[in-house]
Amino acid sequence: MEKSDIGMIGLAVMGANLARNMERNGYRVAVWDHDPQAVERFTSEWGGGNFAPSCSLEEFAGSLSRPRKVMMMIRAGSPVDEVLSRLVPLLEPGDIVIDGGNSQFEDTTRRCDELRAAGILFIGSGVSGGEAGALYGPSLMPGGEESAWSEVRPLFEAIAARDPDGAPCCRWIGPGGSGHFVKMVHNGIEYGDMQLICEAYDLLRKAGGYSNDRLHELFTKWNRGDLAGYLMEITAAIFAVKEEDGTAVVDRILDKAGQKNTGMWAVRAALDVGNPLSLIGESVFARMISARRGERVAAAALLSGPVPSAVDNDRLADYVHDALLAARVVSYAQGFSLIADASRAYGWDIDKAGLALIWRGGCIIRSELLGGIARAYREDSRLPNLLMDPRFAARVGSALVGWRRTVTVAVAGGIPVPAFSSALAYYDSYRCDRLPANLLQAQRDYFGAHTYERTDRPEGEFFHTRWKE
Amino acid sequence: MEKSDIGMIGLAVMGANLARNMERNGYRVAVWDHDPQAVERFTSEWGGGNFAPSCSLEEFAGSLSRPRKVMMMIRAGSPVDEVLSRLVPLLEPGDIVIDGGNSQFEDTTRRCDELRAAGILFIGSGVSGGEAGALYGPSLMPGGEESAWSEVRPLFEAIAARDPDGAPCCRWIGPGGSGHFVKMVHNGIEYGDMQLICEAYDLLRKAGGYSNDRLHELFTKWNRGDLAGYLMEITAAIFAVKEEDGTAVVDRILDKAGQKNTGMWAVRAALDVGNPLSLIGESVFARMISARRGERVAAAALLSGPVPSAVDNDRLADYVHDALLAARVVSYAQGFSLIADASRAYGWDIDKAGLALIWRGGCIIRSELLGGIARAYREDSRLPNLLMDPRFAARVGSALVGWRRTVTVAVAGGIPVPAFSSALAYYDSYRCDRLPANLLQAQRDYFGAHTYERTDRPEGEFFHTRWKE
Repeated sequence: MEKSDIGMIGLAVMGANLARNMERNGYRVAVWDHDPQAVERFTSEWGGGNFAPSCSLEEFAGSLSRPRKVMMMIRAGSPVDEVLSRLVPLLEPGDIVIDGGNSQFEDTTRRCDELRAAGILFIGSGVSGGEAGALYGPSLMPGGEESAWSEVRPLFEAIAARDPDGAPCCRWIGPGGSGHFVKMVHNGIEYGDMQLICEAYDLLRKAGGYSNDRLHELFTKWNRGDLAGYLMEITAAIFAVKEEDGTAVVDRILDKAGQKNTGMWAVRAALDVGNPLSLIGESVFARMISARRGERVAAAALLSGPVPSAVDNDRLADYVHDALLAARVVSYAQGFSLIADASRAYGWDIDKAGLALIWRGGCIIRSELLGGIARAYREDSRLPNLLMDPRFAARVGSALVGWRRTVTVAVAGGIPVPAFSSALAYYDSYRCDRLPANLLQAQRDYFGAHTYERTDRPEGEFFHTRWKE
Repeated sequence: MEKSDIGMIGLAVMGANLARNMERNGYRVAVWDHDPQAVERFTSEWGGGNFAPSCSLEEFAGSLSRPRKVMMMIRAGSPVDEVLSRLVPLLEPGDIVIDGGNSQFEDTTRRCDELRAAGILFIGSGVSGGEAGALYGPSLMPGGEESAWSEVRPLFEAIAARDPDGAPCCRWIGPGGSGHFVKMVHNGIEYGDMQLICEAYDLLRKAGGYSNDRLHELFTKWNRGDLAGYLMEITAAIFAVKEEDGTAVVDRILDKAGQKNTGMWAVRAALDVGNPLSLIGESVFARMISARRGERVAAAALLSGPVPSAVDNDRLADYVHDALLAARVVSYAQGFSLIADASRAYGWDIDKAGLALIWRGGCIIRSELLGGIARAYREDSRLPNLLMDPRFAARVGSALVGWRRTVTVAVAGGIPVPAFSSALAYYDSYRCDRLPANLLQAQRDYFGAHTYERTDRPEGEFFHTRWKE
């Protein structure tokens, strides 16, 4: 029997599509799933290709050329540990296991260590781009056991998306769970981008009276300019999709957002390293509020608020454009700041410029902006914050008036813009050399003797006042 | 030897003050600390009282009347488990151990279960009020093994603060880690209250040109009205405290906020149960941004922004008063909503009215507001949100114009108000029966086939559109 180049465990849509992507690129792929019916389904649909379906994990492991390369695309959490406990005894030292699911980065770090002890090289890889990306080219963010990378690299580069310069959207991220960490931040930024677009939409329809057709035109125009990106592109497309009766589908969709866990994990990871990931936090919370639809409908009948006053359409669109531009920069600035902090805290040494480059293709947040981010970090890899790059500082500076007008129109009109206003508060806090935290420190010293630093003494010296005497 | 009524482990300031509080109330208190010098210090200072200092844990356990009652006031985390592992073998079934530190509620739930297996009754109690509260009367939030409560209750009620009606600030909260959970939320609300006061201060000095003396007058006035509370009281006092050269101390304090972990834990707990704790989240993040002082000073030189335009002083104070009033209600609304969600998720059945009552004395967030909160939940224990109480709805409604003006003045003037604006976005989202989450669901269905619910079909039915055809 001809040996396979790689094995895929998990034949749900992501695993099946990645396996097909590999096969299309010339690889022989062994496939297995703990559900025999999934193997049968895959075989009946794609069995004509260069695949080796296996009925058992033993057969699967035996069918792979050495060093074995096994990729897992299964549900994150305990299923990964369960499959590993069955798989590892069938492997030999030097074999490679890749987890391409949305695993928590701490789990990946732990598995790296556990499998290293058994002589197995473990890689945890972010895989972005959804079903279509898996089939036609995802953005790949592998991290873990770097000694395995040279074995896996040709395959990963073959199946990855291409960036606008034709390079594969795939780079080695770093040790341990760093690959899954950056994928988690990617998803957090995705949450932020989506929430910002939703707030723009809400303002335009409620304060500007925009119809879906005009929104389609406007977002199509924006997608040709400095807001260009995949999410802008699909948003423009969405406004044009109609039901049979001519109603826009988007008007028939209930305003209850779902979410998986990665956005929430990003906020938790930020709390753990002390990084102020506020815009993404507000975006996660906004989905939660939307999900409480019953409460909201009841509250709408009781709680008062203003009626949005009509704003000149074209000026409003200009304001909202600028708000989107500036707030998206903040969303990325926060995400990359989190990556920098985590990279330092966990000793990963992540190349932020390289990461921005591989997000330019394949993944959900691919956008025009990422080229500028890569350039900013290439010019100064120690940039403390994207906002401190002179080009981004100027770009945001030119959008400031429109951004502030957008928020004031929303606030005065009773339209919630948690992400636009959180991003602005972040910007104004970050550029503020005199925050009111001196009063906060006074309060903490008053009731808890927590001490404070002084403006007229070196930082690191702490003082206490006997406030009550 | 006369047996002691209760034993205290940990003689740092909180433990020592609680022991003295107990002794003052007629109890004989055995005391022990793993540091012999701490025992010596305590003995030399307070040994004349009805205390039984012990040199060893064995002696300590032997000196207690049965069932033994041991309270621990030591650093949260592994030290608690270490002391428990040494203490439990010295105890007998039916003995009671109380952890009064700032333990994570999950740890308390676990310890309850572990000690129950050994026949020991474990209580995890929130203790609020700082050093002074510990000595003169804290607010106590005990939870865990309810069968131990009748044994401990007389002691706890004797040492607790009194609420404005003269009742002890102490009530049984519920099973497992519920006592530590509500203490964590208390601290989260404290973060929110403090951040809101800081934003009010910042606006008044930067947009209104208020001096510390005028701030002292204004906050003193506010503390006599519907904003009355301990944090308002100490803020008013702080503005009046001067250095020897006549400078207000608050002006000499560096604007770098510290934080312990409970605020952050509250946000993490909210993420875990899907509760949108946005204002407290922004307050935690605001402290983190303030702590990055070096970055901020550098950014202040590069990033542009408007100069706050002068606003009429008295009108500004009225706006800010209303913003404080409304946003504080949101802060408490979010905190109590989190408690309701956690109580449901973990099966605790927490009495929210009773909790509001015991926060009216002893603790940092004690305020006029809590009486109204107790009334709201007493009238409707299933109130989904404090904002839905008719009195609070009216109270916030009357403050809406000033609140919105406060945020627009800040936004236009470049003064960061993350908590004021986050609270407003929460209010406007919560009362919104048509959020833009329909577009978000369309995007998720477009790129990930996540499906959506429809406005013209019952909730719980999910649909998918083939957007690209």
